[in-house]
Amino acid sequence: MAKFEFRAKTNWIEGGHCVTSAKSFYGVCEEDTTRKETFTMEADHPEVLLGKDLAATPAEIVLHALGSCLTGAMTYHAAAQGIEIEGMESSLDGDVDLHGFLGLNPEVRKGFKGIRVKFKVKSDASEEQLRALSQFSPVFDIITNPTPVSIEFEK
Amino acid sequence: MAKFEFRAKTNWIEGGHCVTSAKSFYGVCEEDTTRKETFTMEADHPEVLLGKDLAATPAEIVLHALGSCLTGAMTYHAAAQGIEIEGMESSLDGDVDLHGFLGLNPEVRKGFKGIRVKFKVKSDASEEQLRALSQFSPVFDIITNPTPVSIEFEK
Repeated sequence: MAKFEFRAKTNWIEGGHCVTSAKSFYGVCEEDTTRKETFTMEADHPEVLLGKDLAATPAEIVLHALGSCLTGAMTYHAAAQGIEIEGMESSLDGDVDLHGFLGLNPEVRKGFKGIRVKFKVKSDASEEQLRALSQFSPVFDIITNPTPVSIEFEK
Repeated sequence: MAKFEFRAKTNWIEGGHCVTSAKSFYGVCEEDTTRKETFTMEADHPEVLLGKDLAATPAEIVLHALGSCLTGAMTYHAAAQGIEIEGMESSLDGDVDLHGFLGLNPEVRKGFKGIRVKFKVKSDASEEQLRALSQFSPVFDIITNPTPVSIEFEK
């Protein structure tokens, strides 16, 4: 019941511009048949990073995934625990040193050195309760802990 | 020059439905003034996960960020090294055991146990060359290595 597999296909358009589509997934012991729509998502890079700035960068998309996953986890678990949340918004930022991506310094990591999330929550819940709710987020786990990624290439 | 800060704001709409916006960023020693558009991105959950299925899930959005970042990193570094790539597409999938998210088993991780990426690349480059190009991806680094995330709550 609890095993899910999520999928996506990414197509390269040109430069840093990509379009990803997501529809099929496996869950609750079967291939899903309820989703009618294919969701498409774009990514690009700003002009200073040699893109055409047609969409958010992958780094901003990671912040989107984290912000929405933390929010979803908090609202689901708040509902399950009878904690009322009236409203919620968050701002996220992350620092990157491009010496890593550009291969100029192998000591510098390629990804975010760190991400800061600031939540503004309308709720009577304590900060400790809100923090405990946020820890259920799958994307928070994926980012803060190592997640194995295997890559295969085919011609 | 090389220090960048990327930002996003996530607003909770209802249930698992969120809208994230991204516009401002810092890079090349100043606040960016070239980006005119605010990019908005949505997230939701499918019906079997109690959402309204209005957009991709945060888990699929992570796959989108990874697929587009790997693709961008490969095309940028291929161009820099004079390696020709004519076309590229990838399919990504990741397994989640919801016992983790649901809090039913603290031994089970909340995020993806692992992610598989399959690239189909039109290029004369060898598999080793393509793999070396992919390793420059910031999102690959963020996912495969621990990235610190700090969370603050404000009422």
